[in-house]
Amino acid sequence: MTIVDRLAAARGDVAADLVLRNGQLVNVISGEIYLTDIVIHDRHVVALGKGYSGVREVDLAGKYVTPGLIDAHVHIESSLVTPPEFARAVLPHGVTTVVTDPHEIANVLGLEGLRYMLERAKHGLLNMYVMASSCVPATDMETSGARLEADDLAPLVDHPWVLGLAELMNYPGVALGDEGMLDKIALFKQRVLDGHAPDMTGNMLNAYVAAGVQSEHECTSVAEAREKLRLGMTIFIREGTTTRNLKPLLPLITAENHSAICFCTDDRIPADLIDHGSIDYMLRSAIAAGIDPMLAIRMGSYNTARHFGLKKHGALAPGKYADLLVLPDLQDFRPEQVYRGGVLVAQEGEMVGERRESRRIDLRSTVNIQSGELDFSIRAKGEEIRVIGTVPDQVVTEHLVQQAKIVDGFAVSDIERDILKFAMVERHRASGNIGLGFIKGFGLRRGAIAGSVAHDHHNLAVIGVDDESMKTAVRAIAEMGGGLALVDGAAVLARLPLPVAGLLSELPIEAVRAQYDSMIEAARELGNRMSDPFMVMSFMGLEVIPKLKLTDLGLVDVEKFQLLELFV
Amino acid sequence: MTIVDRLAAARGDVAADLVLRNGQLVNVISGEIYLTDIVIHDRHVVALGKGYSGVREVDLAGKYVTPGLIDAHVHIESSLVTPPEFARAVLPHGVTTVVTDPHEIANVLGLEGLRYMLERAKHGLLNMYVMASSCVPATDMETSGARLEADDLAPLVDHPWVLGLAELMNYPGVALGDEGMLDKIALFKQRVLDGHAPDMTGNMLNAYVAAGVQSEHECTSVAEAREKLRLGMTIFIREGTTTRNLKPLLPLITAENHSAICFCTDDRIPADLIDHGSIDYMLRSAIAAGIDPMLAIRMGSYNTARHFGLKKHGALAPGKYADLLVLPDLQDFRPEQVYRGGVLVAQEGEMVGERRESRRIDLRSTVNIQSGELDFSIRAKGEEIRVIGTVPDQVVTEHLVQQAKIVDGFAVSDIERDILKFAMVERHRASGNIGLGFIKGFGLRRGAIAGSVAHDHHNLAVIGVDDESMKTAVRAIAEMGGGLALVDGAAVLARLPLPVAGLLSELPIEAVRAQYDSMIEAARELGNRMSDPFMVMSFMGLEVIPKLKLTDLGLVDVEKFQLLELFV
Repeated sequence: MTIVDRLAAARGDVAADLVLRNGQLVNVISGEIYLTDIVIHDRHVVALGKGYSGVREVDLAGKYVTPGLIDAHVHIESSLVTPPEFARAVLPHGVTTVVTDPHEIANVLGLEGLRYMLERAKHGLLNMYVMASSCVPATDMETSGARLEADDLAPLVDHPWVLGLAELMNYPGVALGDEGMLDKIALFKQRVLDGHAPDMTGNMLNAYVAAGVQSEHECTSVAEAREKLRLGMTIFIREGTTTRNLKPLLPLITAENHSAICFCTDDRIPADLIDHGSIDYMLRSAIAAGIDPMLAIRMGSYNTARHFGLKKHGALAPGKYADLLVLPDLQDFRPEQVYRGGVLVAQEGEMVGERRESRRIDLRSTVNIQSGELDFSIRAKGEEIRVIGTVPDQVVTEHLVQQAKIVDGFAVSDIERDILKFAMVERHRASGNIGLGFIKGFGLRRGAIAGSVAHDHHNLAVIGVDDESMKTAVRAIAEMGGGLALVDGAAVLARLPLPVAGLLSELPIEAVRAQYDSMIEAARELGNRMSDPFMVMSFMGLEVIPKLKLTDLGLVDVEKFQLLELFV
Repeated sequence: MTIVDRLAAARGDVAADLVLRNGQLVNVISGEIYLTDIVIHDRHVVALGKGYSGVREVDLAGKYVTPGLIDAHVHIESSLVTPPEFARAVLPHGVTTVVTDPHEIANVLGLEGLRYMLERAKHGLLNMYVMASSCVPATDMETSGARLEADDLAPLVDHPWVLGLAELMNYPGVALGDEGMLDKIALFKQRVLDGHAPDMTGNMLNAYVAAGVQSEHECTSVAEAREKLRLGMTIFIREGTTTRNLKPLLPLITAENHSAICFCTDDRIPADLIDHGSIDYMLRSAIAAGIDPMLAIRMGSYNTARHFGLKKHGALAPGKYADLLVLPDLQDFRPEQVYRGGVLVAQEGEMVGERRESRRIDLRSTVNIQSGELDFSIRAKGEEIRVIGTVPDQVVTEHLVQQAKIVDGFAVSDIERDILKFAMVERHRASGNIGLGFIKGFGLRRGAIAGSVAHDHHNLAVIGVDDESMKTAVRAIAEMGGGLALVDGAAVLARLPLPVAGLLSELPIEAVRAQYDSMIEAARELGNRMSDPFMVMSFMGLEVIPKLKLTDLGLVDVEKFQLLELFV
């Protein structure tokens, strides 16, 4: 069918595919809620109003109808599953469109990873738009699987599913006029430019915005968000699994400024998506806290579509896609039915229809470590060592200096003081690089945990009590082609294969969630008391978040932005 | 200077070109008004806030600062002057950006006309964005100077100053799926599509919007506007010289829906622009009628920029163009100073600086009529004739049937009954076509009036008491290469040359206004009592507005959409 057919249905000359009768339309454009019929044909809303007939007709009996929700910024990789499985998790929650920055997989596989995400989302049930990853790798103090410069991104500028340039995390670089950053900004100047500038303020913030950056999702306080909003940044309020900014930012929202505010999740783990939801969770929370449902719905749909120039999304009107939610209640925002392109895809929180077979995509293996013996031994070069100090529920760390436990001339893990050996094994290029250090707070009494998820370079991180356990863990992950492992000596106690780039499982999200839960349970048996040691470990290599981190090149003093010796 | 310099100024590393201190910034993004400094460098706002120093610094002493105003839809040709002169008229009123549909000149000169407008605006003081004219010619019942199909418009799709497709006036064609219309819509589907669908409603309106049309400036009632806004059309409230829709539409505007509303002027004559202004006039009127100044300013700037995707216009924030107004008072919205690109261009209602010399543009002559004797005689073929009946202050007409005055076997003008001969002389292709008819209401007791402005085909219209006067008038216009003329027998009483396409003068707008006023005065001496007989005449050939009109092919019954014989 084409536009000719849609116009015929809009005129009423032919019966439409579907007429939803007697819905209370939440018209986010006019700011009104009123009873009308919604006429759908060929994936689109073609008309609003009475007097149409449909091949199918559904009486909504006065239930509310809203646009499908839009996540303004999400890293799908954080769900540990492929885009179709992520879609199965969020569609029942009413999220019909996401704007994703695939920078995790891009750090491993470069453009090949980005293409994987696009291909896996294509012809799927969720509208997945992509922002081209702007900071791959994050810094030069790591070895990543790929490097994306402006020329690499050029083919994406006019890609139909690419909306712009993803979060410009090198915010000092942008404000200072770094050539590589400005090249990328110039390349995407007609498109959307997303920001990421935690705590940036004053002159430097002015410069960052003057460079053309249009949004910010890192605000944690009203004062920070207000300064940024006044300077013209669209504020994406974020409610991720660990980064929970919604409640502190609710006082920012007013009727006068809300059109410059959107909602996003950034990073959510499977259990969170399944149990609590996504943007719908934010709407429920905001409305429960007293935000007018019309404003909340706009921030979860219309505003985001406008920000990204998505003409056919975010509102229900002739010519827009028929992505819509049916709800009995706006106060407790739980979609009873979810339509995508005029097709019912979820009902009562469950997907309708079978899980589709995924098309074959050939992807190279990404765990590429040297075949020789791994050596995690640390010859003592002094008595005091720098130790990464974990902070509960935070991705920032402390920069500690501690007495080393030295045995036979080698620095080793000290269970009593909970100072464990931490290694970052380069896994992209078989360079043999192994960054070695120590970390406090994981509490293992025996064994090791390891994973190929380690933001943003995603080298192979392993924390252990003894070298044998650490080697077993690394070998287990290499065997799986990536994933998470938990071992004790020579025995692998639990594993979660993540064969896609070492980041994603191809299993259903429910299965991944179950495996992940049992991994955390197993870690408790080894002594760990964190709610999620694998996620904590995955951030211990992220050298753009303070204070002390470990990459395959060694310890990084984030505040001084330089590599450091282990021994003081 | 480049972005590197702007970032340096934003950081405060170098002195900015200009710092406006202590302005009450009307922040249309956040919906707040507060005291701040505005830092300008290299045409852009680079920072908001304290602590900057400038090469020049101006203390605004608490005066208000707003974005420059934007006219969402204007035919510059209606000002009878070239874009630089139009700019001189509107800039002192605070209009720094216009979105224009050059369909008058496009009907005469096709793409050459459109290029003329772009060239004349280039490097000028006013930001002139163009919408590609979608309906040239308006119908097939006329001879225009050009025909623009989708293929002709294709080179404009990615033109940096072209924003989309101009008002889709063939609204039944769009709703019915006319191939030519759908071709053009498909061509511009990534850009903005402006509408024009007076009184369209219900199913046909749904189809029109479903085709992708995004705006409407023809609304005359709140009910009409509300229906269209709810369907997703951005409503351009229009206040033209003759089409005054602002007052009737003010009750439409609410805080909840105003972001889908913009202001436009469509058509304004020189006297109106000079004496009353443009979008500023609309703001004053709206605010005087009780609209919140913040909403009014948004409708006159920010909303329009967002609608058209003009990222650097419509708000004052880092990275935006420094197009801004300084005002002592928001209630009586009269810009004291107008900055464009950080440069003061107007002050106290007057342009600052000299009128610039225009660059040479070679344009072909457009009055191209057959060299032989003109024949306006009408041999009587019956006793009753169809007569165009003018309606005071309207562009619609009555379809009258009257007894013809017949002398020597020819139908002639009848002064006593005010039924005058009306001819439309094809002037583009020297085809020799002359449409002949009669018109009631012009009141001439002697002589003739003529003009090469006749919407939308712009053939040569002439209304006269006797054939000699009519011939003199047509020859006078041919001699000028287009324009307006007022004659009596063999004597030309007054003339206004419009050598550019027969539509525009190259003189200063003040001179054109004075000449135009004296033409109207002269018409009064011949017996006409209309406030503007030339404008009325210019709409008597527009065969898309009911009921009876005259083109070079003859009388048109607009309601039946067909050509008619003069004699009943």
